[in-house]
Amino acid sequence: MKEQGLLLIVSGPSGAGKGTVVEALLARGGYALSISATTRPPRPYEQEGVHYFFQTEKEFEDMVQADGFLEHAAFCGHHYGTPKNYVLQQMAQGKHVILEIEVQGAFQVKEKYPEAVLLFLAPPSLAELKKRLEGRGTEDAQTIAARLRRAQEEMALVEKYDYLVVNSQVEDAVADIEAILRAEKRRCIRQKEFLQHFREGQEGLC
Amino acid sequence: MKEQGLLLIVSGPSGAGKGTVVEALLARGGYALSISATTRPPRPYEQEGVHYFFQTEKEFEDMVQADGFLEHAAFCGHHYGTPKNYVLQQMAQGKHVILEIEVQGAFQVKEKYPEAVLLFLAPPSLAELKKRLEGRGTEDAQTIAARLRRAQEEMALVEKYDYLVVNSQVEDAVADIEAILRAEKRRCIRQKEFLQHFREGQEGLC
Repeated sequence: MKEQGLLLIVSGPSGAGKGTVVEALLARGGYALSISATTRPPRPYEQEGVHYFFQTEKEFEDMVQADGFLEHAAFCGHHYGTPKNYVLQQMAQGKHVILEIEVQGAFQVKEKYPEAVLLFLAPPSLAELKKRLEGRGTEDAQTIAARLRRAQEEMALVEKYDYLVVNSQVEDAVADIEAILRAEKRRCIRQKEFLQHFREGQEGLC
Repeated sequence: MKEQGLLLIVSGPSGAGKGTVVEALLARGGYALSISATTRPPRPYEQEGVHYFFQTEKEFEDMVQADGFLEHAAFCGHHYGTPKNYVLQQMAQGKHVILEIEVQGAFQVKEKYPEAVLLFLAPPSLAELKKRLEGRGTEDAQTIAARLRRAQEEMALVEKYDYLVVNSQVEDAVADIEAILRAEKRRCIRQKEFLQHFREGQEGLC
C-alpha cells in the first residue's frame, strides 16, 4: 500500500511567486494539482478534468448539498469549488495535492479538513513585492497599489497559517516546502497506524 | 546576526539507535550536544564542560533555586540537571542543541521551554528492538526483557511528542530530523521577527 499523501494549501500575494514554486514542485514528481469545479463556461483551450471540472448550476448545487466540496465561493456570477473526492483520490495514490487558494478559502478548507497543511508564501518585503509587480510591466500603478494593499491584508492573517516560507530564491523555497512535507509526515498525529501496529506487536513478545 | 538554533529533544528506547543518529547529526555540523550538570564525582576520563559540568550539592541547589535548569532529577543519590544557560548560548550562536533525555525529563523541558521540538526515535517494531538488544550481546535475557517493557511504557506516551521518527535506516532517520528542523524554522510561530519587520516596511510604501 502506498503511503498517503498530504494536502498542501498554498496562499500568498500576487507576485510572491506561487506559480513558479508550484511548477517547480510539480516537476519533481509526487505532486498533483487540485482541480476546481466551476459553473463558468469553458474557454476554447480549456479541457474538462485538466483545467476545471465544468458543471451545471444543478450539478454544483447538488455537490454543495452532498458536502462534496472542501470549499466553494461565488465570483462574478459563477460558482467555483474544490471537489473533495478528487483531492482524496490523489492523496490515496500517495501524491501530495497542492491547492493554490486565497486566505478565506484556505481557512474554509482547514475547517473541513484539519489535516491540511497551510503554507503562506511571502515575498521578502513589500518593497520587493512592489518591484516584482512593476517589473512584470503588465499592470498600471493603480492595480499595483491595490495588489500591495491586498498583500498587507493577507499578511495580517499569516499567524493562522502553519508555515510561512519567504520566497527570496525559488530553489530555497522549494527545498523548504519539501522539508515541511517530509516533517509533517513524521508528526505523531499522522502516525496512528504505525503506533497501532507497534502496539499490536506487543502481545506476541512480552 | 546568526539565525537562532532550535532545541531538539531526543527520546527513545535503548536500542532505537539514538547514539548513532545523534553522532551522525553532530558530524554534519551546526549541532551542539547539551551538557548536563551533576553532583556525581567525575570519573578519571571525564572532563569538566565536555562530559559534564561538575557541581557541589550547594552549587546545584543554588541553580535549582535560581531556575537555572531546564529539568533536573535525582538518580542513585546524585543530582543531574540540564543547565539552561549553556543551551541558550549555543542556540544564540545558531546551533541546534540536541538533548538526549528520557520521557519524563522531556516533558519537564517542554513545560519550561515550549519552543523545544520533541522527537521520539522508535525502532521499526518491538521484535526488531529485541533482535538489536540481543545482537549487542552485552545484556542478559532478564535485562533485555526489562528494556522491552520500558520501551512499551515509553511508546505509550509518544502522542505527547511532536514527531515520531522510525529508525529503520540511520541515513533516513537523519534526513527526517534535518527536514523536521528546517520545517520547524518555517513555522509561523517562530517568525515573529520577520513578520514585524515586514509590517514595519508598510509605512514607507503605501
